[in-house]
Amino acid sequence: MPVYKAPLRDMKFLLNDVFDYPKHYTSLASGENATPDIVDAILAECARFCEEQLSPLYQSGDEEGCILKDGQVLTPKGYKEAYNQYRMGGWQGLSAPEEYGGQGLPASMGLLKQEMMGTANWSFSMYPGLSMGAMNTIFLHGTDNQKHTYLPAMTEGRWAGTMCLTEPQCGTDLGQVKTKAEPRGDGSYKVTGTKIFISSGDHDLTENIVHIVLARLPDAPKGTKGISLFIVPKFLPDADGGVGERNGVSCGNLEKKMGINASATCVLNFDDATGYLIGPENEGLECMFTFMNTARIGTAIQGVGPAELSYQWALEYAKERRSMRALSGKKDPDHVADSLMHHADVRRMLLTQKAIAEGGRAMLYDAARLADHMVEGHTAGDTEKAAKYDDKLGFLTPILKGFLTELGNEAASLGMQVFGGHGYIREHGMEQIARDTRIATLYEGTTGIQALDLLGRKVLLTTKGGAVRGFTARIANFARKHLTNGRLRPFALELLKLTAQWNLLTMRIMLAARKDRDLVSSASYDFLMYSGYVTMAYMWARQAAVAADRLDKGGDESEAFYKAKLATAEFYYERLLPRAQAHATSMLSPTRSLMQTDSDDMAFTG
Amino acid sequence: MPVYKAPLRDMKFLLNDVFDYPKHYTSLASGENATPDIVDAILAECARFCEEQLSPLYQSGDEEGCILKDGQVLTPKGYKEAYNQYRMGGWQGLSAPEEYGGQGLPASMGLLKQEMMGTANWSFSMYPGLSMGAMNTIFLHGTDNQKHTYLPAMTEGRWAGTMCLTEPQCGTDLGQVKTKAEPRGDGSYKVTGTKIFISSGDHDLTENIVHIVLARLPDAPKGTKGISLFIVPKFLPDADGGVGERNGVSCGNLEKKMGINASATCVLNFDDATGYLIGPENEGLECMFTFMNTARIGTAIQGVGPAELSYQWALEYAKERRSMRALSGKKDPDHVADSLMHHADVRRMLLTQKAIAEGGRAMLYDAARLADHMVEGHTAGDTEKAAKYDDKLGFLTPILKGFLTELGNEAASLGMQVFGGHGYIREHGMEQIARDTRIATLYEGTTGIQALDLLGRKVLLTTKGGAVRGFTARIANFARKHLTNGRLRPFALELLKLTAQWNLLTMRIMLAARKDRDLVSSASYDFLMYSGYVTMAYMWARQAAVAADRLDKGGDESEAFYKAKLATAEFYYERLLPRAQAHATSMLSPTRSLMQTDSDDMAFTG
Repeated sequence: MPVYKAPLRDMKFLLNDVFDYPKHYTSLASGENATPDIVDAILAECARFCEEQLSPLYQSGDEEGCILKDGQVLTPKGYKEAYNQYRMGGWQGLSAPEEYGGQGLPASMGLLKQEMMGTANWSFSMYPGLSMGAMNTIFLHGTDNQKHTYLPAMTEGRWAGTMCLTEPQCGTDLGQVKTKAEPRGDGSYKVTGTKIFISSGDHDLTENIVHIVLARLPDAPKGTKGISLFIVPKFLPDADGGVGERNGVSCGNLEKKMGINASATCVLNFDDATGYLIGPENEGLECMFTFMNTARIGTAIQGVGPAELSYQWALEYAKERRSMRALSGKKDPDHVADSLMHHADVRRMLLTQKAIAEGGRAMLYDAARLADHMVEGHTAGDTEKAAKYDDKLGFLTPILKGFLTELGNEAASLGMQVFGGHGYIREHGMEQIARDTRIATLYEGTTGIQALDLLGRKVLLTTKGGAVRGFTARIANFARKHLTNGRLRPFALELLKLTAQWNLLTMRIMLAARKDRDLVSSASYDFLMYSGYVTMAYMWARQAAVAADRLDKGGDESEAFYKAKLATAEFYYERLLPRAQAHATSMLSPTRSLMQTDSDDMAFTG
Repeated sequence: MPVYKAPLRDMKFLLNDVFDYPKHYTSLASGENATPDIVDAILAECARFCEEQLSPLYQSGDEEGCILKDGQVLTPKGYKEAYNQYRMGGWQGLSAPEEYGGQGLPASMGLLKQEMMGTANWSFSMYPGLSMGAMNTIFLHGTDNQKHTYLPAMTEGRWAGTMCLTEPQCGTDLGQVKTKAEPRGDGSYKVTGTKIFISSGDHDLTENIVHIVLARLPDAPKGTKGISLFIVPKFLPDADGGVGERNGVSCGNLEKKMGINASATCVLNFDDATGYLIGPENEGLECMFTFMNTARIGTAIQGVGPAELSYQWALEYAKERRSMRALSGKKDPDHVADSLMHHADVRRMLLTQKAIAEGGRAMLYDAARLADHMVEGHTAGDTEKAAKYDDKLGFLTPILKGFLTELGNEAASLGMQVFGGHGYIREHGMEQIARDTRIATLYEGTTGIQALDLLGRKVLLTTKGGAVRGFTARIANFARKHLTNGRLRPFALELLKLTAQWNLLTMRIMLAARKDRDLVSSASYDFLMYSGYVTMAYMWARQAAVAADRLDKGGDESEAFYKAKLATAEFYYERLLPRAQAHATSMLSPTRSLMQTDSDDMAFTG
């Protein structure tokens, strides 16, 4: 069974050596308390919690799943106890405002916590994760009264929260939302409708659950401009900050899923439930999406965490399992066969996992600094600053969410592959990682939606290619600095070629799309994946640069660590990055072969 | 829930128009009865059986799974009845020798049957599939007495069979097999040991199960040259062809797996079981592997069938589900949103599935003709002919098994993706297809093993590149014929480039491998995938050639079918084939980045 060990060495390498978080934190008001010592202590404590409390529940939670009993969802054995530990550790308030009982640390600290928790036990991590989304929404759009009613209990982890968007007829296309909210005349609303796929929609971890619900006011305009946002708590709050009357929201069904079985995915029925408007009327979608970038980056973690977990466990197996002899001659002559580690193709699989996990982690930590500034803008009420960093983050978000979750699935699948037939057997847990990870490209916007957001909105519509120009300038700037270093020159040269190509591809799509709008959609997936491979190449070069520098200086006790970094960077450039060129070719293909066949002529069965 | 409709139109297009099976069958002794009318009738009857009997049990079998009760495995509800229908329909004997009660039709007819059964319900199809493997082994290596004892009951489907290779310590590396067989002095052997991952190892579908078991005689040489093959029936046959005494083989456990839950995967304990030597002493592996190519092609079907099933169902969903508006403007103005079919990126996913299913099917049918000749050589005792065709098939086998099962997984995953979040929910069945298909790259030799078999054995060791030269000559020959046809010229030109490149890559690997043997392993996966993409490109050009010809002639009622074929061929060349170039780049990378890092330096946790 996969046992999680927090990769603290790699995390600190990225935080301290590659991205200089200590300096970054000095630029933040919320960073005042995030001194290196404190950060180290928090990471160590969080690692211990994840390794000791969450990891052991990973497999049992999957086997047992959640149960709907007498209208109440029960989480698997041990989850409630683990959640109590989480709550008592103050983890939910880590990066929440001090005003409501949080510790006010930078948002990126929350991401580090999420990464560790999500790697140890993704399903568990979804309960506090969804709460965080609801907290953010209330913090930003709630009235003072709403904030004081909900945020302290949620920050404490005593209450949880959800985000209720999807309905049976619509997921992506929220303009089709039908749930109704009618004013009662007392300032509250009567909310009626059915929401599906509500993660953490009901559970037994907290005494209350605060639902943030998309619904339509009477006579609201059709489509996306007629949707408002409501707070609908499971229990109505009483005057003392405790729970009062049971509200008209109930879990009608628990979905049976491929994986994340310990995470309750609920059908929620709102039946004359009492709700409170949050944010302006008919601007619910905008409010809901204020923190979309951070939510999506939260999901991008699922591309990195499971890759790490699967890698750790596949590596252990590959060291122990013996099969055949290495092609270059016997390596373990005293044993009946050589360890899997001596087979180049097995190493190809393991290094692919490692490159994805560590390259993806770098992408997350790079972006998290922007999130820190954005959140700080919001906290300080500096909407201009918030918007500026949200824009920067907005370009990276679909790349991180779309690309990393696709690669996370590949990594999880490779972990099974290293195990051979044993990878398919449940007891080894490798197939669970694959099943759990499979949701990542589907929820919080499918890969297709991320691709369209990236190419259609962020690159073409909003910035006319400027987003790519800006980001590639940053990459090229880095590359030019390292052209003269022997170890780094191959990476730098490749990056310079890629930055030029990325801009050229963007330009060519922009021109072609003027004549054929469908091309934006047909090119989007390949453009997303291409962007991802180049971004990850940049991140591997950044890591290689630090490793090369340390090795050149010599005398570092981490020599083996840095050498492994360089080898993995080389591996990435040799064996994964070439895929970018296949995407470059595909994205420029005309739409003809895609669009010309009538729906009815797509299959000829019978 | 996925409902299977046999793609008879496409099957007949390939059989009659692309590969001219009617003519092929006139070249076979076993083809005498395989007239076009008979083939059509058999396909129609098999389609009906699969659609009406097997498809409805697909999802219920997964939910229910197999149960081990009082030492006996029980298959899910309805499986026994469906199997009885299968048996009474004479399906098990379709391509078995008439001498033992079979219908003596060509082996390729069996493959068509397997494809339809496996697409409708892969788990079900494994029971007769494993029997076929055992039948083939007994037919080829058994004594007359053994053949008459076992083959009639197995051909009738009254008895089933298995192949018992894997043990806890070894799967691929069968030289490590420990199961013992000691002579009893009466011509029988006492077989003792534990076998794992035995598909159909026990079940309630037949009155007896005939296990073909790898075991070691006392004092047998170590390793692969000391393994013999034994027949170990669940019940010892009595003199009248019925079942007698219960033998010492029992199912100790049923594996809990990611998928194929209706297929019983057993731990089999052989406890002083009575066995009978089959084939020469210590040549068990050779005997077991006589039909390895056909068995692996049987597994390659799992790359095609589930792709077809997932495609059929995703296509239905995409036609019905409405979300957003097409980028090129409203397409269904009377509806709240456009159907998914109007989004180019959704079509990209569907066409990828179609290209894999139909391109893969063509690869199977192309190879099946070689299997027909090989089997006919065996049947006629013409070992030279058998060996000749086995060699030809041996080059294609790892490509089909390795490449098609990898792409089958991609197709099944895309089917989920088309469904969005609903793809992750069990009731829709799309995730079941993905779970079921995931085993395909693991059993019957992992993708890594196929890759090594292709590059290391078939290409470099046995033929010094001759296998590639021979196959590419065939492709180039086809391409040159179509250079002057306007529609086909782009395909033909691309194929000519690829055939040259394939030989060049082979040569470069051969040279580099002289200095660095690990390169054979490090290049093997990319070489396999490259080979697969080129082979599939050839198959799409073959289909395009027929379609273009029919369209040029005009007046065919199937115009829409042929146009869709051409569009899919174009799609394949534009959007999937470019991946071959990424593999070409990767395979030539040096092994340094792969091999240089010490096992202990691959991860730095804690």
